[in-house]
Amino acid sequence: MQWLPTGEFDRVLGGITDRHERLRAFSALSRFNTLYMVMKAGSGHLGSSFSAADLVSRLLLDELADVDVLFSSKGHDAPGLYAALIGLGRLEEDLVHRLRRLGGLPGHPDVRTPHMPFNTGSLGMGISKAKGLVLANRMLGLHQRVFVLTGDGELQEGQNYEALGGAVNAGMGELTVIVDHNGIQSDTWVRDVNDLGDLEARFAGFGWAVLRCDGHDFDQIGTAFRQRAEQYAGRPAVIIADTVKGGGCPAFAATSMAPDEWRYRFHSGAPAPEVYERARDELLASADAVVTRNGLAALTPRRSDERPSAKATGPSLPDAYGRALVDVALRDERIVAMDADLVLDTGLVPFMERLPERFIECGIAEQDMVSMASGLAARGLVPFVHSFSCFLHARPNEHIYNNATEGRRVVYVGSLAGVLPAAPGHSHQAVRDVSAVGSVPGLVVVEPAGPQQVRAAVEYCSSTSDSVYLRLVSAPVPPEVVAMDADTSGAAPLEVGRGTVVREGGPTVAVGAGPVVLGQLLLAAETTDLTVVNLPWLNRVDPDWLAGLAARAERIVVVENHYTHGGQADLVARALLELGLAAPPRFHGVGLTEVPACGTSDEVLFVHGLSAARLADVLTRP
Amino acid sequence: MQWLPTGEFDRVLGGITDRHERLRAFSALSRFNTLYMVMKAGSGHLGSSFSAADLVSRLLLDELADVDVLFSSKGHDAPGLYAALIGLGRLEEDLVHRLRRLGGLPGHPDVRTPHMPFNTGSLGMGISKAKGLVLANRMLGLHQRVFVLTGDGELQEGQNYEALGGAVNAGMGELTVIVDHNGIQSDTWVRDVNDLGDLEARFAGFGWAVLRCDGHDFDQIGTAFRQRAEQYAGRPAVIIADTVKGGGCPAFAATSMAPDEWRYRFHSGAPAPEVYERARDELLASADAVVTRNGLAALTPRRSDERPSAKATGPSLPDAYGRALVDVALRDERIVAMDADLVLDTGLVPFMERLPERFIECGIAEQDMVSMASGLAARGLVPFVHSFSCFLHARPNEHIYNNATEGRRVVYVGSLAGVLPAAPGHSHQAVRDVSAVGSVPGLVVVEPAGPQQVRAAVEYCSSTSDSVYLRLVSAPVPPEVVAMDADTSGAAPLEVGRGTVVREGGPTVAVGAGPVVLGQLLLAAETTDLTVVNLPWLNRVDPDWLAGLAARAERIVVVENHYTHGGQADLVARALLELGLAAPPRFHGVGLTEVPACGTSDEVLFVHGLSAARLADVLTRP
Repeated sequence: MQWLPTGEFDRVLGGITDRHERLRAFSALSRFNTLYMVMKAGSGHLGSSFSAADLVSRLLLDELADVDVLFSSKGHDAPGLYAALIGLGRLEEDLVHRLRRLGGLPGHPDVRTPHMPFNTGSLGMGISKAKGLVLANRMLGLHQRVFVLTGDGELQEGQNYEALGGAVNAGMGELTVIVDHNGIQSDTWVRDVNDLGDLEARFAGFGWAVLRCDGHDFDQIGTAFRQRAEQYAGRPAVIIADTVKGGGCPAFAATSMAPDEWRYRFHSGAPAPEVYERARDELLASADAVVTRNGLAALTPRRSDERPSAKATGPSLPDAYGRALVDVALRDERIVAMDADLVLDTGLVPFMERLPERFIECGIAEQDMVSMASGLAARGLVPFVHSFSCFLHARPNEHIYNNATEGRRVVYVGSLAGVLPAAPGHSHQAVRDVSAVGSVPGLVVVEPAGPQQVRAAVEYCSSTSDSVYLRLVSAPVPPEVVAMDADTSGAAPLEVGRGTVVREGGPTVAVGAGPVVLGQLLLAAETTDLTVVNLPWLNRVDPDWLAGLAARAERIVVVENHYTHGGQADLVARALLELGLAAPPRFHGVGLTEVPACGTSDEVLFVHGLSAARLADVLTRP
Repeated sequence: MQWLPTGEFDRVLGGITDRHERLRAFSALSRFNTLYMVMKAGSGHLGSSFSAADLVSRLLLDELADVDVLFSSKGHDAPGLYAALIGLGRLEEDLVHRLRRLGGLPGHPDVRTPHMPFNTGSLGMGISKAKGLVLANRMLGLHQRVFVLTGDGELQEGQNYEALGGAVNAGMGELTVIVDHNGIQSDTWVRDVNDLGDLEARFAGFGWAVLRCDGHDFDQIGTAFRQRAEQYAGRPAVIIADTVKGGGCPAFAATSMAPDEWRYRFHSGAPAPEVYERARDELLASADAVVTRNGLAALTPRRSDERPSAKATGPSLPDAYGRALVDVALRDERIVAMDADLVLDTGLVPFMERLPERFIECGIAEQDMVSMASGLAARGLVPFVHSFSCFLHARPNEHIYNNATEGRRVVYVGSLAGVLPAAPGHSHQAVRDVSAVGSVPGLVVVEPAGPQQVRAAVEYCSSTSDSVYLRLVSAPVPPEVVAMDADTSGAAPLEVGRGTVVREGGPTVAVGAGPVVLGQLLLAAETTDLTVVNLPWLNRVDPDWLAGLAARAERIVVVENHYTHGGQADLVARALLELGLAAPPRFHGVGLTEVPACGTSDEVLFVHGLSAARLADVLTRP
């Protein structure tokens, strides 16, 4: 793999005097390093970083005064922003090697990184945050312009429109929104997911000044910024910049997609090695072209000896889920699947292909989706509502409760649950979901550990009369759990509130759910005399079952892929105490106590005390 | 008080042939009964019921086919809708006396009432729910038009705009939104809170067909509906109906407001007796005018001997909070107050008047408000963010967490917390808030019981370095708690995680927080030998303090104004068990296990087992 040191950026920026050529060169160098960073990390958002790269270059090099603020609301384009800031020497050069690593550059922006004023990555919050900054500045007598980059798919989120009116009423001339209008959201074309219609009319309808430009044409970009400043000084303005996802590199450009290709392949994740090499060469060639035609020597990238990060392997629970859902839905005609632009990540492609008439793509609009589910359930259908758990438990939190007060039966399926994968960072690590929905009346929270259990859970979702929150870890299932899952007949119906001893051992009993916790516990049990229990129920426990477990335990430790407050440990502890035993087993809970770190799985499990070694240590301590 | 039996509606509807006269008469009769219902209930939304009354009349009498669906998204106009349905014999006549009573008509719509297809009252969900119904109908081959009434203030909620695009893309000609555009939201004029700008342009910007009419002119209303059907068959359409809040009755009409009056007084709550009498006479006169000019005998209302419901009295915690906030903010210049259109209910009027430069009115846009707080906190200010707890913990749930991941210090103040007042119904009863935010890292949840403790809590919010969720009950503080509050020097700083014995007694120790629980426990203690502990901390408990309490307790019972899952009982139970006592006290939790009922305070505390008598029963049972 190859990357460009900051010295090369210095040389190019110092050596090119033509304004647009300088911007072109800087963008090309930034894209080259962005690709390296994502490749080295093994994941990251290339498409969005590339579509925004020219806008970012123009903003950083020519538009922003020192005092001004720029941030990305979508946050997915963080690698591109990092690469540009490293190129300018505003972030340490060494960080180019540390994307998505512990203590490095998080997968989505975090305020602990210099020049990242806000934590973004959860969509649609940026304009509001910028407004808060503007109001604070006014109170404190500071003069500062605030620039917010948004995606276009992101504009499906309702919060954006909640934010627009107030900015007009406060005459926020300090605020400029730039829409990276690349036409593609997470899965596919925005127009196919939930078309935005006439975007200019949308913004204008809220009273915003609207400008438009080609987001890869520095001439047009410059004109748009100039008009914004000159013609609309006292008003908030949006610049809709038409861009190409993956733009600036034929290998990744959406314009290179085959006519029959519906999925854009470079939204997230690192490319395959051969694609990497092709793209790297394309990027270097285009960068060298600008550099050399401006009289400078060609670039000299450095080589990194390290191999790209190896991906963990193992079965995927969302994939197993998607297969099981199709099978169950073929029998249960009430089932409807709803998705919020994550069909590829939630395992829904088979359902979408097999049962398109019962599939509803809602776009990035979780509140709308969950409230729509009420309407479907009102007619006797059983909506299965999908998103990443980080979004699904939180963005439509009131809506989930509202549905419960109506007595609607809805199945919520939150994938990407828990602390792993840890590379995207805390906006995507759902470690608060059990707490946030666990008290909703009539809603059972269940977390299966392996493919067989996922199938049993889907059967349960179809047959129960309760609503269900299905918590699905997306990290690959480790081999220990695959073996366990095959052993403990996943075909047997799940019994609410009851767990299973999955590893016989001594009087220290470790209780947990899901592949991450059980995987580490089963590993820990190889070096300790531990009894391991799989309790997939996160807000229900059967007192009789628990009494049986307590009778054999000297000590019960609940280990959670969740904050230690508000989850399974609280549930089990309270139920244990309410048993009224004369001498209850000792009790302890292990889980996250701090905002989860970004990094590799091993790094992050270790740092939060959830690795097998650290668990073994805690569990063998007297 | 006076009301009109359904027979009078029958007589009038049967006796008037002119279409518009019939509608006028029906509206007038409905308004008369609406006033009676609200007066008898002692609370309810008159202004919004009256502004929507003519639209509702037209829809119910002339527009809707049997198969069609109408519901109100704002839900505040439920009394008007109920009155009309009772008048048509679609709801039982006896219910006219049972607004906001147990087993009667809830303060906001609930699906358990006939002709109420959805639970509304939490704003901005209606269009989404309607879309779900339309999609379900299409899947099931049903043909049905769906009409959704919204407020205009309600259009500040972002979810509305999340919903609009999808309806266009799906060509939802079945869907019609009617905006009851009365220009006033909860507190005051929409234009002063967060102006909507050109509302027609907003909807048109999303691709909706837009029609406009005078919402009190049946000619214009009829034209709008006809045009909607004839000209825009395959598209979703909105009818913006310009109305007068409190319209149809001079006593309540916003057009009667004095020029210097900023607050509309009849948004919620029953009028004073003399206002009632004036309005009743006005309404009867205008109804009789229509009836008699159409050749029918004057109306003969029935008298109800009952007095209007007496209001509970006692200090208001939001009022005490508002005074304390001003005092603390005069010393602590970092404090900024943010409000979501509930300045009158959250105690913020003194702050707004005294420190207007540090007051930010956000409108009904909780997500925008909470994300803006991040921007303010980023500049070192300390935002105090206000709404009803039912909305504040849930609508911006992800945003509260996002702020926490940034390490922002924000104080969230959720008033109207808990099960009382129970008259508005479950959309407004926040009994899940502790669970939903309790696991947010660095966020301390505290619930003071009396005015002195509220002041201490505000001091704590100013001096701590943590973020705080201040849970404020809005029901009047009962005398037992006022006395307790005066005794246990509220001026002393609160110590995190530690409670106070507020009533010495026997070895059964009841633990709780807030005026509702402590009020009932102190009452229960008058007939039982109970020790009562005030533990205002809902997600923190000090193990040393708890060990001291456990040493004197044979039994600990935690009583919660919250669902029994995910709140203080879980917290205390787990901490007790983790103390590792050889023989821990017996433990039990009492709280809500079902969606809270709507009714009077006494009815609802009893039915959920939280009344003093029922608590005494549980606490004395062996």
